[in-house]
Amino acid sequence: MNLPLAADVIVAYDRIKSHIHQTPVFTSKSINQIVGCELFFKCENLQKVGAFKYRGACNAVLSLSDAQKAQGVATHSSGNHAAALALAARENGATAYIVMPENAPEIKKKAVAGYGAKITFCQPTLEARESTLVKVISDTGATMVHPYNQWEVICGQGTAAMELLGQQGDLNTIITPVGGGGLLSGTATFVKEQFPEIKVVAGEPKMADDAYRSFKAGEFFPVDNPNTIADGLRTSLGTLTFEIIKNKVDDIYVVEEESIRIAMRMVWERMKIIIEPSSAVPLAAILENRAVFANQKVGLIISGGNVDLGNLPF
Amino acid sequence: MNLPLAADVIVAYDRIKSHIHQTPVFTSKSINQIVGCELFFKCENLQKVGAFKYRGACNAVLSLSDAQKAQGVATHSSGNHAAALALAARENGATAYIVMPENAPEIKKKAVAGYGAKITFCQPTLEARESTLVKVISDTGATMVHPYNQWEVICGQGTAAMELLGQQGDLNTIITPVGGGGLLSGTATFVKEQFPEIKVVAGEPKMADDAYRSFKAGEFFPVDNPNTIADGLRTSLGTLTFEIIKNKVDDIYVVEEESIRIAMRMVWERMKIIIEPSSAVPLAAILENRAVFANQKVGLIISGGNVDLGNLPF
Repeated sequence: MNLPLAADVIVAYDRIKSHIHQTPVFTSKSINQIVGCELFFKCENLQKVGAFKYRGACNAVLSLSDAQKAQGVATHSSGNHAAALALAARENGATAYIVMPENAPEIKKKAVAGYGAKITFCQPTLEARESTLVKVISDTGATMVHPYNQWEVICGQGTAAMELLGQQGDLNTIITPVGGGGLLSGTATFVKEQFPEIKVVAGEPKMADDAYRSFKAGEFFPVDNPNTIADGLRTSLGTLTFEIIKNKVDDIYVVEEESIRIAMRMVWERMKIIIEPSSAVPLAAILENRAVFANQKVGLIISGGNVDLGNLPF
Repeated sequence: MNLPLAADVIVAYDRIKSHIHQTPVFTSKSINQIVGCELFFKCENLQKVGAFKYRGACNAVLSLSDAQKAQGVATHSSGNHAAALALAARENGATAYIVMPENAPEIKKKAVAGYGAKITFCQPTLEARESTLVKVISDTGATMVHPYNQWEVICGQGTAAMELLGQQGDLNTIITPVGGGGLLSGTATFVKEQFPEIKVVAGEPKMADDAYRSFKAGEFFPVDNPNTIADGLRTSLGTLTFEIIKNKVDDIYVVEEESIRIAMRMVWERMKIIIEPSSAVPLAAILENRAVFANQKVGLIISGGNVDLGNLPF
């Protein structure tokens, strides 16, 4: 399988950098004291649409030819990728066609509609989502932009780590959450080639441990409808993201749900920033494995900040 | 009455600048669209102890002589000022004596104790707090540091606006919340002398409208135990802060409780930062008075981010 290279991430960054926010890197003395290492939080919750997903979506849209752009982009998603693709399309003069299950939360339907996307609702099954998407694409000629298992998306997500290393170069480890694997594989693609001495690892909810089991076995085991509070990580790896992760990532740690809650609340209370449960998974992994990270400088990618404030997990 | 000058704020900044965080200034396109003006949020929720109060406390502690410092500092407070004074004292080798009502929330007692302060508990009445503080001071020789009605504290708080103007000079108006008036009077002290063309205004909860009524009447009307959700603004002005506000502030706007809730949630959802209800009062004032601020560039001081996550107002 042909895998992207660090150079492709660099090209992606050059393409998207004037379209994205250069998000800040925050530190917290009190959290450093608790975990016994030095953490650098790359705040993609402050990215456009509140998630790193904007990087990959933006790179995908900006990679289209004029002819493709005229026919638009399409995906099925009810999460951050849908909002990211909708805004990336609108800001670049393309139409986004989003397939969403009819039972998606009202707030997410509104957000995607607010970014000007054309939404097609379908039954809330994976089969209905996929068949509806195929129909939308054949009706419109739009280009499919997958939430993670696609070259341009992976390279776009890798720009978060690249930017982080420009802001704070002196790191021993970079840790991300892993769901579909776009952020982790993009990070590993850039970092393991350009800074091979830096470890690239991930945190994953034990309740959705397909990446962990697949990585350890060297063979792909998908999960089925996992119920973790880290709603952004309920997906399984894709073929491409698995191949990159298998070859380039140093380790994956699984974490308990309670650790995710504790880590999320710790960041809210001590850093005064809003992060979604998925973003708390790397800190949860550090809390559960303090000896592994002891005295290191660790870059931690905060993946997003989209939370239902009426339904907090604490 | 002898009032502080902009030069005193500048001296304060020089004294505290290596001890405080230079907090970032955030913007939000989507909030700008809603309010019809351009807002620059000075994020003192990301200051040490999560509040601008650290600036004034730090200036007060750093202004002590060695002999005074050896005897410590004292105050009565159960809020951000207590935490700020406790940390400012510890970081500068002094002891902080804090008088707190015995019914203060456990989390606040823990925070202040965690910063190494010596706490004396008292009955939850203003009379008991004041008499206990007098006893602590006569026992220890500590220097009283008032939460707002004191020269060094006011000048310290004024450094937030000074720093903001260094980051974003081109402003038509600066707006702060007003409770005891330390932040507002410090802001007006610096701004109206150095940038007289910039308006300095404040938002205040209608349920705690002593500053509004006193400002409009030119005479001091305290409030008694107001019950606003903006818990940081339940105090009345002091003699010194009132004098500065009366002379230098351009206007004060009172706001409904519901507007505070809406503004607070708007910042949480759209900016992904945690602000306390008091910090939402200026945005609430802009929401209620859009015509006044239309098309302006407005600097808005976010005063703090200390919220009980188990008891949100929405």
